[in-house]
Amino acid sequence: MSTLLDSSRLPEVIAATILSCLCLTVSAASGQTDPLLSWSDGPAKHAIVSFVREATDRSSANYVAPQDRIVAFDQDGTLWVEHPLYTQGVFALDRVHELAPTHPEWREQQPFAAVLASDRPAMARFSEADWANIVDVTHAGMSSDAFQEIVRDWLEKASDPRFHRPFTELVYQPMLEVMRFFRANGFKTYIVTGGGEEFVRVYAERAYGVPTEQVVGSSILTQYEYRDGRPVLMREPKVFFIDDHGGKPVGINLFVGKRPCAAFGNSTGDQQMLEWTQAGKGARLMMLVLHDDPEREYAYGPAGGLPDTKVGVFSDALMAEARRNGWTIISMKKDWKRIFGFEK
Amino acid sequence: MSTLLDSSRLPEVIAATILSCLCLTVSAASGQTDPLLSWSDGPAKHAIVSFVREATDRSSANYVAPQDRIVAFDQDGTLWVEHPLYTQGVFALDRVHELAPTHPEWREQQPFAAVLASDRPAMARFSEADWANIVDVTHAGMSSDAFQEIVRDWLEKASDPRFHRPFTELVYQPMLEVMRFFRANGFKTYIVTGGGEEFVRVYAERAYGVPTEQVVGSSILTQYEYRDGRPVLMREPKVFFIDDHGGKPVGINLFVGKRPCAAFGNSTGDQQMLEWTQAGKGARLMMLVLHDDPEREYAYGPAGGLPDTKVGVFSDALMAEARRNGWTIISMKKDWKRIFGFEK
Repeated sequence: MSTLLDSSRLPEVIAATILSCLCLTVSAASGQTDPLLSWSDGPAKHAIVSFVREATDRSSANYVAPQDRIVAFDQDGTLWVEHPLYTQGVFALDRVHELAPTHPEWREQQPFAAVLASDRPAMARFSEADWANIVDVTHAGMSSDAFQEIVRDWLEKASDPRFHRPFTELVYQPMLEVMRFFRANGFKTYIVTGGGEEFVRVYAERAYGVPTEQVVGSSILTQYEYRDGRPVLMREPKVFFIDDHGGKPVGINLFVGKRPCAAFGNSTGDQQMLEWTQAGKGARLMMLVLHDDPEREYAYGPAGGLPDTKVGVFSDALMAEARRNGWTIISMKKDWKRIFGFEK
Repeated sequence: MSTLLDSSRLPEVIAATILSCLCLTVSAASGQTDPLLSWSDGPAKHAIVSFVREATDRSSANYVAPQDRIVAFDQDGTLWVEHPLYTQGVFALDRVHELAPTHPEWREQQPFAAVLASDRPAMARFSEADWANIVDVTHAGMSSDAFQEIVRDWLEKASDPRFHRPFTELVYQPMLEVMRFFRANGFKTYIVTGGGEEFVRVYAERAYGVPTEQVVGSSILTQYEYRDGRPVLMREPKVFFIDDHGGKPVGINLFVGKRPCAAFGNSTGDQQMLEWTQAGKGARLMMLVLHDDPEREYAYGPAGGLPDTKVGVFSDALMAEARRNGWTIISMKKDWKRIFGFEK
């Protein structure tokens, strides 16, 4: 780390961006604190530090100009816990319960009856069409503003059944440190999620320091309409864009118009984003979070026997692709000294 | 202007954003140069200056926090010349000529035959379907990278038939000054265009100082594919999103996730964006550019008899809406001392 904060390199950094220089000056003044404190020394931490050093080194052939310093982070399972069910799924199920009194027909109608009966085996067998039905009634039919208010209220009350914490506290401390480290070096950190863009935007600034305009996600159709003479954006029960698999590079291109130089994921839904990142010029960093810590978090995918809860999983094929392409695996167990900010 | 640069207000501005404070300090040191030099004193300039003062004044009830300082600019006819045909239309027609040798059938096939014969009356009658056909063959069937390369090459060679200048020099100097003025006060300037997003992104940074991630526009379907083992984003001949009329607020919500506090347009395609902007809280600014200067540029819409070349026009109904809502009209003739940067 010392090379990065070496004062002889400061002029270059100042030239790169005024803001990042101010941050680095502060870091240097406070005694060259390790920005990746929660990371154990090892290949994952080394890959991150080496990448940032190379990307910001003007004398390097792999130097990345400040305007091209784009980093993409998947969310569920990469930035925060996704087991036993990703948070937006928990929200949708809670919302079915909340709306049930005004929908007596749901008692007899699947998939709602299974949700209301908390029939876990039936819910585990839900098809994509079942989930689409649930999304339609819980995520559409209201304005964007109203939806975000509903999500905000829910986040304040909801808590994870295992950790007994608000979901927004279940973000991975090491990943927060990586995001801050990137930003301090002039990178723009984007969340590129298969989850709902308007859902994630409610808490992205607070939880990750990522403003709404740097959240790229899936979306349903939105229509401009007038209600009581005032314009509203109404959320319709129709998929507009799925930001997953090949949709991730497409979404990044659509929203950002630049190719990331670093990308972080944890499932097959992230594979194309990592490929797309790798195929660019200059310094590159592709990383996959492996959930191999059943004590402190969970073990699934190649590292455990927990059933998968998402369409995108860390499959053996993804592991083979990672090895073939030289992507770096982040072992939660070995690489992370601390998983959550609330741990001592 | 002096109030804005008054040194007693600097501490507030510093608190607002570090970058904007640095810029203002420079301005103040260089003798309080008017940032809107090409604007005549009058209601339009006054509206802009008053808005920025109010939005950045922490003691104002209409103060706008730095993260919410979003300004949206339509492009064609608002930031640069759109007559006699908007630039992307000129590109499409030129491209038909360039591709014609490999499409002998076009000699007999409309709308291509009319383009190749330079049959202006026929082209003036082109339907939306005709234009869609032209867009399909000129804008799709290649990768995003290849398309942007084609646009880049074309922009280097093409020039406007009246001004004999590259199109990127036909940006309005007063609007460049407004964009810089906003940015110096901590605003993010977005282009929100009915035009093609990937077209505009080719020159947005160079022409307007707007990075690709701040260009919201119309798009065709893009697919993630592999060619020769390498990933590419292929442009398909299918509309994905039309960023015009109600699509402008939808597009802003999709890309930015925040409501603008100021919006600039010049046609009915911008009406909804201005309504949406106005319906928010805090300081607001809604402006429409009126083309009423046939000597230095063009006169059309309420100010002239030139035929309209776009679906969105400055109609009498739009003028009535502007009056009813208190939107400010920018008269090119009266409000702009200079139209283009190349004028002396």
